[in-house]
Amino acid sequence: MNEGAESKSQYTVDLQPVGRRMLVESGLTLLEAAQRAGIGLAAVCGGAGSCGKCRVQCIEGKLSLPTVDEQRWFTAAELEDGHRLACQAVPLTDVRVTIPPESLSALQRLQIEGQETEVAVDPVIDLVDVALAEPTLDDLRSDTVRLTDALAEEGRPRAFFGQPVLRVLSEELRLRNWAVRLALRRQDPLLGQSGIRPWREVVGVVDAHQPMLGLAVDIGTTKVAGYLVDLETGHTLAKHGLMNPQIAYGEDVVSRIAYANEQADRRNTLQQRLIAGLNDLVDRLCSEVPVHRQQIVDAVVVGNTVIHHLFVGLPVTQLGASPYIAAVSEPLDIQTAHLGLELAPGARVYLPPNIAGYVGADHVAMLLSTEAWQAMEPTLALDIGTNTEISLAVGGQLLSCSCASGPAFEGAHIHAGMRAAPGAVEYVRIGDDRIYVQTIGGQPAVGICGSGILDAGAELRAAGVAGPTGRLNPGHPQWGSRIVNWNGGGAFVLLNKAQTGNDHDLLVTRRDVNEIQLAKGAIRAGVDVLLAEAGLGYDDLSTFIVAGAFGTYLDLRSAMRIGMFPPLPLERFRQVGNAAGTGARQMLISARRRRMAESLVNRVRYIELTAHPNFTDFYMDAMVLS
Amino acid sequence: MNEGAESKSQYTVDLQPVGRRMLVESGLTLLEAAQRAGIGLAAVCGGAGSCGKCRVQCIEGKLSLPTVDEQRWFTAAELEDGHRLACQAVPLTDVRVTIPPESLSALQRLQIEGQETEVAVDPVIDLVDVALAEPTLDDLRSDTVRLTDALAEEGRPRAFFGQPVLRVLSEELRLRNWAVRLALRRQDPLLGQSGIRPWREVVGVVDAHQPMLGLAVDIGTTKVAGYLVDLETGHTLAKHGLMNPQIAYGEDVVSRIAYANEQADRRNTLQQRLIAGLNDLVDRLCSEVPVHRQQIVDAVVVGNTVIHHLFVGLPVTQLGASPYIAAVSEPLDIQTAHLGLELAPGARVYLPPNIAGYVGADHVAMLLSTEAWQAMEPTLALDIGTNTEISLAVGGQLLSCSCASGPAFEGAHIHAGMRAAPGAVEYVRIGDDRIYVQTIGGQPAVGICGSGILDAGAELRAAGVAGPTGRLNPGHPQWGSRIVNWNGGGAFVLLNKAQTGNDHDLLVTRRDVNEIQLAKGAIRAGVDVLLAEAGLGYDDLSTFIVAGAFGTYLDLRSAMRIGMFPPLPLERFRQVGNAAGTGARQMLISARRRRMAESLVNRVRYIELTAHPNFTDFYMDAMVLS
Repeated sequence: MNEGAESKSQYTVDLQPVGRRMLVESGLTLLEAAQRAGIGLAAVCGGAGSCGKCRVQCIEGKLSLPTVDEQRWFTAAELEDGHRLACQAVPLTDVRVTIPPESLSALQRLQIEGQETEVAVDPVIDLVDVALAEPTLDDLRSDTVRLTDALAEEGRPRAFFGQPVLRVLSEELRLRNWAVRLALRRQDPLLGQSGIRPWREVVGVVDAHQPMLGLAVDIGTTKVAGYLVDLETGHTLAKHGLMNPQIAYGEDVVSRIAYANEQADRRNTLQQRLIAGLNDLVDRLCSEVPVHRQQIVDAVVVGNTVIHHLFVGLPVTQLGASPYIAAVSEPLDIQTAHLGLELAPGARVYLPPNIAGYVGADHVAMLLSTEAWQAMEPTLALDIGTNTEISLAVGGQLLSCSCASGPAFEGAHIHAGMRAAPGAVEYVRIGDDRIYVQTIGGQPAVGICGSGILDAGAELRAAGVAGPTGRLNPGHPQWGSRIVNWNGGGAFVLLNKAQTGNDHDLLVTRRDVNEIQLAKGAIRAGVDVLLAEAGLGYDDLSTFIVAGAFGTYLDLRSAMRIGMFPPLPLERFRQVGNAAGTGARQMLISARRRRMAESLVNRVRYIELTAHPNFTDFYMDAMVLS
Repeated sequence: MNEGAESKSQYTVDLQPVGRRMLVESGLTLLEAAQRAGIGLAAVCGGAGSCGKCRVQCIEGKLSLPTVDEQRWFTAAELEDGHRLACQAVPLTDVRVTIPPESLSALQRLQIEGQETEVAVDPVIDLVDVALAEPTLDDLRSDTVRLTDALAEEGRPRAFFGQPVLRVLSEELRLRNWAVRLALRRQDPLLGQSGIRPWREVVGVVDAHQPMLGLAVDIGTTKVAGYLVDLETGHTLAKHGLMNPQIAYGEDVVSRIAYANEQADRRNTLQQRLIAGLNDLVDRLCSEVPVHRQQIVDAVVVGNTVIHHLFVGLPVTQLGASPYIAAVSEPLDIQTAHLGLELAPGARVYLPPNIAGYVGADHVAMLLSTEAWQAMEPTLALDIGTNTEISLAVGGQLLSCSCASGPAFEGAHIHAGMRAAPGAVEYVRIGDDRIYVQTIGGQPAVGICGSGILDAGAELRAAGVAGPTGRLNPGHPQWGSRIVNWNGGGAFVLLNKAQTGNDHDLLVTRRDVNEIQLAKGAIRAGVDVLLAEAGLGYDDLSTFIVAGAFGTYLDLRSAMRIGMFPPLPLERFRQVGNAAGTGARQMLISARRRRMAESLVNRVRYIELTAHPNFTDFYMDAMVLS
């Protein structure tokens, strides 16, 4: 915006923890500076100061005085501590600024891509165009009776009007001169389970002939992926991702449960932040098509059990301690209006059943979309995330477990870790005399993301730079000189200052290697427990399905070499992307798929790993870098 | 509170519009002063400054400075204009203070009394005590599955859990060590209408063996009556009344519709104020028994169509203009949690069907409880209020209409008008040489209430003091000297200063007489239209049912003499009190009574008076003081 202004000087802007440093003309905001460096900051409002998403903290140097908008978003104490909105703050000197994870926009590699599978379109919503006679003094029928009579004339089943629809119905009918399109929802699946025969609920009222859409959302602990789907064709019209706004209250579900337990209203805070994020997501999706959010007449949301509970506003305390009991495991159909999710007034969100513990509806959706749930040959399917859920299918039965793999592969708890964004190291090979590193977008390296971390761990071990416990060897003949002291534990210089182009070496610390060991050990131990329970060996596995964004980009050879995955021929792996999101979309367009999801959970035997007699042994073994 | 303080002086406190004036010691608050005078000010919090109900406005004189509590309840501009809380403000000089109607507590004569009729107890709620096995690592069933299984073991139908119950269920189960009493609601009547077979919804969770109650509320335009009923015995355990808090936004439904139309969020304001008032009412009812509000597992609310719509949060615009169409006329079952009404978490409120126009569920409730709806002999039933609804039953069929009788009989728009509270003139007889006046409680007269107004009008006309158009005759041989000038229109001195004990004559103005004419004319015209439609004469009426508080206390002879009611033998009248409240209680304890209410509306033919060709003629005739 200020590019045309005469530049009086330049300042250095140092963005942390991504580690990007640059010279910018005076007058640019921090947001503009970050955008030039390709660092995506969340800025839903486009830099108007109204969304409060691009929060940063100034650690060194001087910025312009806080604006009125910033005073709205921060307390005086926070402003004093250097907390600012990047879109408002302009450097007045060289500055160093920290970008908290929640302010980083999800960039290229959101986990929104998933394989499309062919599912017959069979949504729970029917569309009916009706033209009503206008009321007169001789025809005083109420608005609902008028509509009910018109539907009966067309031979439709009796319709029910929920309160959120009643709140708008009278105005909508009159605005549209009594000619409207109704979205009628087929029977409530819960009632369906009771054998009750079909009925209809009016969920939306729009102009006649307007298309009606559905929303599918996969809510991960870290990332959220949303899809807008045409309910008549089944086509995905728009997809978007965002960071789960709950990250600010804890990186993993355990810390969010702890946060919710601290005070009575915090569960509501977690719910409201998530819902606000989803409303933003819907805004973006709608503007892309473009459509009005009132046209979204159905929704499916999947997530792990804790996320599921927090979304619905259910208590999570009992999920935080053994025996880890869910408040509800049955499928739910909840009026979105009562959650604060702004779609068509009467839209309901369908939540597939949970399995147990943290194995939730997202895993069900993945099992559904990959067809793993009905595999007859031994098939293992896992979705790597902050929690990793694993199922082993054989003969139409399923064994499932959940392991706390932690956020290391999301870049958290890793010294130079970052999300899969431009400038992230995503590929590492340590040769005999040379180290090859590839960054996303081929840009100067600013950090290292999940697949790069996995590669680095595997390569350091293979090259003999790291030992079985992760200790780094300064006596290594070729690479010993790259081992530096770091917090008493040693670190490997993956890229030096000259290579990164800023004043930082890009380090992989011993602690990083240990974090990789913990994460990969947890995942492998889960795999091993399930196979042992089924009495199967690795080679019995005919298919090994890896879902999730990280699972798509990881190098399978590295995953096997480091011991995260068992050694299998490469052709037995299937990397399926965001299969949970795909499953959610399938359930959105198909009532039959919902019934499948509900029946597949009955085939599952859940293994609580923390209570399994062999888990600790498996875990200790699996943690070693062999 | 300050009674023990040494009094330095006394001040005169003049309370308007009740017209009570008194000397009080310095140091007393306005609330204490009013209480000494027997003027009941609303003070839910007992004068702690926390409920904000005892709002008054100081017109003359000086009060103590606003307290912190008052600054919370009023804007600076309002404080500047003399708006204060009576419980906080202490006179520093002689003062004159106005008490707005909503600050007057409902006193003796709330319309909560109604005849009890014998109805077989058949509530929609079943109580089940269940003891559950505690979860273990070998029994990981979710809380809902655990409950569902336990209910199935007892041979109960499948239960459904709504989101508000799910929000608390896990905590309630653990707090009570897995032994609880569940309130299960039988099928949703709306679904019932569709022929769907019964199912159960969990609406409340309390300690085993705890009693469960229901709430019945009759929401009038001006007054609200609430009842707490034991659902097992059908007995009313507590009753209480309050002023409809919406009065602050318009005295009648037409002005409330106008208010709601002005701005988008005002409909919500009207809803929220009403719901807040009902939550206060529930507090009072609960503390009287005493019980916890979580024990209230069912509710029935009746009101006219506009009140019904505002309670549910429905649009009223279309009810404000011809042809006066209701958004919904079918019965509703709404989760109270979603209305903000705080009862058992899953409690639903049942709203009986509306008829048409302003003839709403309260009239249905009255027709139900009086059995008028199935009268075979010609029976007229009316409920006099700010709106008066009238039905004529004959041969099991009903003709119904609504007329805007206005709030004159509530004391509004009447010069010395007040509600039926201590000190209100309730009875007037003008003899040949003496005027006899009786006040409620035998206290010094502070104003005149509905039955007194009706009497005064009838007596002034009968004595020849008022002519057919309401003109007052200063030449009247006996009472001419009592006619004084008043705003150019004349007024009759019913009681002089010596008789009232304050510095005011108690006047009945010509304008008052005209207000009475408008009100009684509207009611009589409604009666006449219905009889004409049915081809009946007055004498054909076998029963004339008068419902409502005013209807209970009015003098039938005066009502006939003034022409509000047709001339009939006294024994044909039945004064039934708050029959709408009685009907609400019947529907609360009996599913069968709900079905009756739903079927009775099918027998009604509604007459829209404003569109009736003869209404204006009848009205002009009926307005005259014959």
